[in-house]
Amino acid sequence: MSILIKGGTVVNATGAVRADVLVDGERIAALLAPGFPLEADRVVDATDKYVIPGGVDAHTHMEMPFGGTSSADTFETGTVAAAWGGTTTIIDFAVQTKGTSLLAALDTWHQKAEGSCAVDYGFHMIVSDVNETSLKEMESCVAAGVNTFKMFMAYPGVFYATDGEILRAMQKARETGSTIMMHAENGIAIDQLVAQALARGRTDPVEHGLTRPPELEGEATSRAIALAKVTGSPLYIVHLSAAQALDAVAEARDTGQNVFAETCPQYLYLSLEDLARPGFEGAKYVASPPLRPKEHQSELWRGLRTNDLSVVSTDHCPFCFKDQKELGRGDFAKIPNGMPGVEHRVDLLHQGVVKGEISLERWVEISSTTPARMFGLHPRKGVIAPGADADVVVYDPRATQVISAATHHMNVDYSAYEGMEITGKVDTVLSRGRVIVDGSGYRGSTGHGRFLSRELNQYLV
Amino acid sequence: MSILIKGGTVVNATGAVRADVLVDGERIAALLAPGFPLEADRVVDATDKYVIPGGVDAHTHMEMPFGGTSSADTFETGTVAAAWGGTTTIIDFAVQTKGTSLLAALDTWHQKAEGSCAVDYGFHMIVSDVNETSLKEMESCVAAGVNTFKMFMAYPGVFYATDGEILRAMQKARETGSTIMMHAENGIAIDQLVAQALARGRTDPVEHGLTRPPELEGEATSRAIALAKVTGSPLYIVHLSAAQALDAVAEARDTGQNVFAETCPQYLYLSLEDLARPGFEGAKYVASPPLRPKEHQSELWRGLRTNDLSVVSTDHCPFCFKDQKELGRGDFAKIPNGMPGVEHRVDLLHQGVVKGEISLERWVEISSTTPARMFGLHPRKGVIAPGADADVVVYDPRATQVISAATHHMNVDYSAYEGMEITGKVDTVLSRGRVIVDGSGYRGSTGHGRFLSRELNQYLV
Amino acid sequence: MSILIKGGTVVNATGAVRADVLVDGERIAALLAPGFPLEADRVVDATDKYVIPGGVDAHTHMEMPFGGTSSADTFETGTVAAAWGGTTTIIDFAVQTKGTSLLAALDTWHQKAEGSCAVDYGFHMIVSDVNETSLKEMESCVAAGVNTFKMFMAYPGVFYATDGEILRAMQKARETGSTIMMHAENGIAIDQLVAQALARGRTDPVEHGLTRPPELEGEATSRAIALAKVTGSPLYIVHLSAAQALDAVAEARDTGQNVFAETCPQYLYLSLEDLARPGFEGAKYVASPPLRPKEHQSELWRGLRTNDLSVVSTDHCPFCFKDQKELGRGDFAKIPNGMPGVEHRVDLLHQGVVKGEISLERWVEISSTTPARMFGLHPRKGVIAPGADADVVVYDPRATQVISAATHHMNVDYSAYEGMEITGKVDTVLSRGRVIVDGSGYRGSTGHGRFLSRELNQYLV
Amino acid sequence: MSILIKGGTVVNATGAVRADVLVDGERIAALLAPGFPLEADRVVDATDKYVIPGGVDAHTHMEMPFGGTSSADTFETGTVAAAWGGTTTIIDFAVQTKGTSLLAALDTWHQKAEGSCAVDYGFHMIVSDVNETSLKEMESCVAAGVNTFKMFMAYPGVFYATDGEILRAMQKARETGSTIMMHAENGIAIDQLVAQALARGRTDPVEHGLTRPPELEGEATSRAIALAKVTGSPLYIVHLSAAQALDAVAEARDTGQNVFAETCPQYLYLSLEDLARPGFEGAKYVASPPLRPKEHQSELWRGLRTNDLSVVSTDHCPFCFKDQKELGRGDFAKIPNGMPGVEHRVDLLHQGVVKGEISLERWVEISSTTPARMFGLHPRKGVIAPGADADVVVYDPRATQVISAATHHMNVDYSAYEGMEITGKVDTVLSRGRVIVDGSGYRGSTGHGRFLSRELNQYLV
Repeated sequence: MSILIKGGTVVNATGAVRADVLVDGERIAALLAPGFPLEADRVVDATDKYVIPGGVDAHTHMEMPFGGTSSADTFETGTVAAAWGGTTTIIDFAVQTKGTSLLAALDTWHQKAEGSCAVDYGFHMIVSDVNETSLKEMESCVAAGVNTFKMFMAYPGVFYATDGEILRAMQKARETGSTIMMHAENGIAIDQLVAQALARGRTDPVEHGLTRPPELEGEATSRAIALAKVTGSPLYIVHLSAAQALDAVAEARDTGQNVFAETCPQYLYLSLEDLARPGFEGAKYVASPPLRPKEHQSELWRGLRTNDLSVVSTDHCPFCFKDQKELGRGDFAKIPNGMPGVEHRVDLLHQGVVKGEISLERWVEISSTTPARMFGLHPRKGVIAPGADADVVVYDPRATQVISAATHHMNVDYSAYEGMEITGKVDTVLSRGRVIVDGSGYRGSTGHGRFLSRELNQYLV
Repeated sequence: MSILIKGGTVVNATGAVRADVLVDGERIAALLAPGFPLEADRVVDATDKYVIPGGVDAHTHMEMPFGGTSSADTFETGTVAAAWGGTTTIIDFAVQTKGTSLLAALDTWHQKAEGSCAVDYGFHMIVSDVNETSLKEMESCVAAGVNTFKMFMAYPGVFYATDGEILRAMQKARETGSTIMMHAENGIAIDQLVAQALARGRTDPVEHGLTRPPELEGEATSRAIALAKVTGSPLYIVHLSAAQALDAVAEARDTGQNVFAETCPQYLYLSLEDLARPGFEGAKYVASPPLRPKEHQSELWRGLRTNDLSVVSTDHCPFCFKDQKELGRGDFAKIPNGMPGVEHRVDLLHQGVVKGEISLERWVEISSTTPARMFGLHPRKGVIAPGADADVVVYDPRATQVISAATHHMNVDYSAYEGMEITGKVDTVLSRGRVIVDGSGYRGSTGHGRFLSRELNQYLV
Repeated sequence: MSILIKGGTVVNATGAVRADVLVDGERIAALLAPGFPLEADRVVDATDKYVIPGGVDAHTHMEMPFGGTSSADTFETGTVAAAWGGTTTIIDFAVQTKGTSLLAALDTWHQKAEGSCAVDYGFHMIVSDVNETSLKEMESCVAAGVNTFKMFMAYPGVFYATDGEILRAMQKARETGSTIMMHAENGIAIDQLVAQALARGRTDPVEHGLTRPPELEGEATSRAIALAKVTGSPLYIVHLSAAQALDAVAEARDTGQNVFAETCPQYLYLSLEDLARPGFEGAKYVASPPLRPKEHQSELWRGLRTNDLSVVSTDHCPFCFKDQKELGRGDFAKIPNGMPGVEHRVDLLHQGVVKGEISLERWVEISSTTPARMFGLHPRKGVIAPGADADVVVYDPRATQVISAATHHMNVDYSAYEGMEITGKVDTVLSRGRVIVDGSGYRGSTGHGRFLSRELNQYLV
Repeated sequence: MSILIKGGTVVNATGAVRADVLVDGERIAALLAPGFPLEADRVVDATDKYVIPGGVDAHTHMEMPFGGTSSADTFETGTVAAAWGGTTTIIDFAVQTKGTSLLAALDTWHQKAEGSCAVDYGFHMIVSDVNETSLKEMESCVAAGVNTFKMFMAYPGVFYATDGEILRAMQKARETGSTIMMHAENGIAIDQLVAQALARGRTDPVEHGLTRPPELEGEATSRAIALAKVTGSPLYIVHLSAAQALDAVAEARDTGQNVFAETCPQYLYLSLEDLARPGFEGAKYVASPPLRPKEHQSELWRGLRTNDLSVVSTDHCPFCFKDQKELGRGDFAKIPNGMPGVEHRVDLLHQGVVKGEISLERWVEISSTTPARMFGLHPRKGVIAPGADADVVVYDPRATQVISAATHHMNVDYSAYEGMEITGKVDTVLSRGRVIVDGSGYRGSTGHGRFLSRELNQYLV
């Protein structure tokens, strides 16, 4: 089956051109000058629209166990929502818990995802327990297409790794060409601040933000960079939210060290003020690192322009307000950490284009091309080019929409962006050559999405 | 006439894919998955080779008057040499001298180039005389496709502009969306050091380097950045050679200021030691800024990786050793400033790939894509994409060659890289759809190259 | 004649101790533990008061010609005002004008000051005309006790020196151990902004501030530092007013370069808002560099704490509002540049102690000890120690006063601090062993003050 | 009993003056202009010599238990050695071990020191066990004249404190005005490197250095600074040895944060090469942080000039080569950490004056005045002034000596500086008005030294 996407502007990270795109089977067969005479089984009209590589969301947590509950989206519901929003690849996190094996965790996650996904998916591995066995297993993970290992400087007693454990994992990453992903907050110090706030009777959601000061994200980021320097390991800072952390990343990158960072839409658009909304409303905005005072936002946009922030992912980890977020009434530390977002990343970043924060090409780069290259999926993903997987989004830059829980497709009972007006809207989505979203709605099927065995980070020299 | 470039690896700045390239007339008509069934009038076999966008050399000086003589390559000889080396676009500098008009200078340069060039060409404008008239003329230049204006903080009495003149030109640049290009050396201070050296009887070529310390390039770069900040003007530092200057650029870029920089192959491969060669041999290496101590080289390679250096141009400005360089025997200050290079940029940068200094994609980016975007030629130039001009180079990464004046095509009697062994070699070159270099030699024709009216810098947000 | 200052707290830069001070003739003869049994001709009761070394104001302009007029204080009136305010040493600027000789200028200034001063005085030399003769004369100046040479990057056509001239003077400074003092503003660029403002009909005093942006002080400061680095010359930035300049100084000092800076009380207490006062009132606040937006003030206080700012001088250069400042009605560029201040420096800095900005010792250090050491007057000046000149101030930290033109002693018809309430007040002042101010008023005599031949900067290693 | 020190040059931190010093009882009674007519019971001739405030060594470990053994100097032998070397005050560390009380530790150390010391002494408190009780006890320590609390980011399982414990102690420090002293090395990461080295059979002393890379001192220093910033606590980095750590301190100090640092003579004069001496000889040089590659030395000297390093202490912690250092044969991790030094600090720093690294005043400042002010002993200690304790050293700048274990007075069987030639030598030492060292040798007595209850850090604003 062939599809000709006709009349649009193909936007790749290095520029926009008028061109038609021919899809043959699961792949892009050709990019053609406009009007090049070729037939196809189906024609998609992209006149006045952008034709962009499908989004790559490198940071999601579907059906993840956390604090006695589980994130609300399954791989099925979450990937359908992703598809609606123009994201055709997710990379989710398999979770090793203390005392278990990496490979067992990987198996578990394969079981969750296999046959469930609307779009393609890969895995990172969360390493909670560093020991001789798990270090050895890192090699098997790499062989199995999982070569990015996330560690936590936060969450003592749960995911927290000591600096010694981080050092050992980084040595193994260096050895195998893998990249260490880091949740960089000084959880040990934060836990004291949390305990002190609770002891003083301060239990509101805003305390979640106040007890995790930006300096402690900056500190942990610097520390991770130092450990990466000592070991020679590539480092990727996840969900960077604070100007202090950005400064540390920028300084390291100026020296040419293999340090990279992502931020998330919530840090670009939301702030500590949302966490401080009256009543328990702020619980909707509890995630870690926390939303920051507004002045951090312009720093993050700047970081996206300077490429000190290379990727925008969602850290999609939805918990319903009812029953889930409510677990933390009277104790902010019990509010499940996480926010929904997988559906709106591409749209929210397009606002950056509309407002002049980033260029059109940069929009594609940070939402698709760079994550694809960073996580070894390029050139299958992240680019409109012959031979690439036909993960293609036709995007209408002039359509408008209003974000709302009433209309979104994520399995969660609130939206962090409720009522926000957006310029731009996904028109048509192809996943590996199949139209899965079009004007008539979602047309994909459960299990169409396949596991992506990933190559190494392509930014390392 | 159609040409199918078959079997190669298409390397764009965002990635390499196996694809065939169909050229129809002057443009690329299609990128096709390997083996896609299409016929063409002619087939170029690119098996085991790279297919890359033709090089864009954004800094050349053909037949430029300097110090009573003139650079040795005409637009004809220089562009033929460029073509041999895989460069299919040059941007040369029209020169306003004191007391003359910008538009008259542009006319003169048009006359020099028109009908002479083997490949396409554009112009920057050197502004030597800032006054109400010339500022007004900047607007006409922009309308005429010349929107980049070079100024000099060096060469007092010749090209030198005062900070006040720079400020005024930058204000006009801000107004018109133009970019100021800056030769950043503190020429006023340097002239004192030169006079002092000569007064002490120090006349050898190496004095050229010793009297232009890297701190004075760093200083001027910082000053240009400050003036650009005050005026809001985009700034592009030409031929950056010193670590101190790179630091200033990196610091400005970290703040998101519109500051960009290029370096040149000579600063990456040659050093003050070459200037200090015995006898008058060092004269071959006299250019400004001067070659630096070797330790600057690794800093520059790092800058290319971190994108604090975005472009590599040649500053091609050849003077023959005999009769021209010799004008400075006994007085290094009289040695014509400039070195040949337009033919070897693509090859020399490919060595960076071979040695692991830069990635394959970065090679294409700094030698073609970024200069094309920086100077408003994209997507006609700088990318292999449908609709783009068919400026295509088939590059053989495994062939080897030795650089020598005996074999090069530039009109100059020496090579700065004499005897250097290179891995990689241009195989076939297309300029706007026409094969101008292939296995049988140069097959282009004088006057094939056309003037490129350029859009604005595409990196400004 | 001997004087015993009894019962006070002696505050030196390194600490405060309860001690009595015995003055014998012109010098301090002894510091004595409280109650040490010694007789003296006269006893000054310092109970509950500080006994501090007399202030050293290293930057004054008495009866200085400027723009067709002359600063309003003579050496006589200005030094009496200084004495009232606890300053017992001034260093004034002899002015070489273009085409004249340094030594002739020095003679002229000697003639102005000799026999006129209430307190001791030294000279810096303003170098406006750099040539072989004046460079040679710098050596004679050093021999004559004047080893600090001020140059201007501002005021083109008047005091302005080119970077080449600065370089040459710095080389001579390096040779002779002298220090170059720099007025660091990019006057060449500023002149354009001034001309543009006037051309647009913007003539109010506030334009003086708006046409001299802080970035152009930062730039000039960086440039001076670079030239000092190339030449190895010590550098002292006068009247630093902008955070950008402070950053440049701090960065240089971190590397151990011999770079120093002073600020002035007006930059600590007044701001651009004063320049923008209604009508022509802002003219009272016209000085260069201009008063800055308020946010610079806290940066300057911080700089005083970190010692990136080492000295506070006044840049005392008073012009009467009537007849003098009024020369600039309708053209801000014609307002004489300068403000009165020599009388209130010690008091204004004491407010920093009262408000907790600086410590008691630091107050003495920045107003007396450091300028004495920086300008080669230590240990005669700047310290309460045996053998030192008996320039001693008894300061009452609890007395209060209100600054006003109605009560001040400077020969100028307005006060920049009119109505400001001050905690702390000079009680008694000794100059070289003679009580010149006490409860009964000024008791000194014209011509008591002597010329101070100065040693080299004591901070150079 | 009165003593007149006659004919010398009194060197204080703010300058040198010719003056006689009259001591009456335990205190300085007067500073007198040379030849001032006063009688005394005894006259000390200081002609051609410096008269300086007795050294203050703020970092010693006398008879400290460590790794199953104990440092070799008792308070008696150690303070006699100090006296010989011109140090008249030491501040030693009382050690709280896990599970014990701060006040009990203080008692123990009081018992060790009381009646044993040749010179005055104070205590810092090492906090190993942070809990509600010990935090509360910090208040009692402050009341008892011990307001500086040392914590360790190194030595897990022994002294190591977590970031949470550090945070809590810093909060208490902020509350009480105390200063946290930090051993800043990332001990958690280091322990991994040590274990890995041992596992690979690398057991030589040099491994001590190789397993503690300077980046991990830099990291810990940055982290301590961040925690101090979050809590508002003053911070004093002990024994800073690495350029990376110095950079972190300098950056924090530029912002005005209350961050201070000391280095030690061994880091100024010795290097990793000493640790790598053949055989087991390197064990003599095992201390933590380890000796660094030589290029760090010039950075440290620079830091002393820029005041980013404010103090030089010894970290005197001697272990005999025989029997003690030898515990680590075959396992470098078992070598007791520590080096002797209390006797030679003043002499070694005087070499800095001789070589032009620091000025005469700076020598006094870093070895006496600043530690006295930093640790609340000023103006009793650290200055030659009336009312100050008569801790006075007459120092002969022209005498020479050779350092050797054969002649030193410390109770340890080797010298780290064996054979080093020194210009300058202690001539006479007074402790609280009593001559304890003179030409005839040590004349002090056990128990003359008294405990010093200290005020708060005088550098905090």
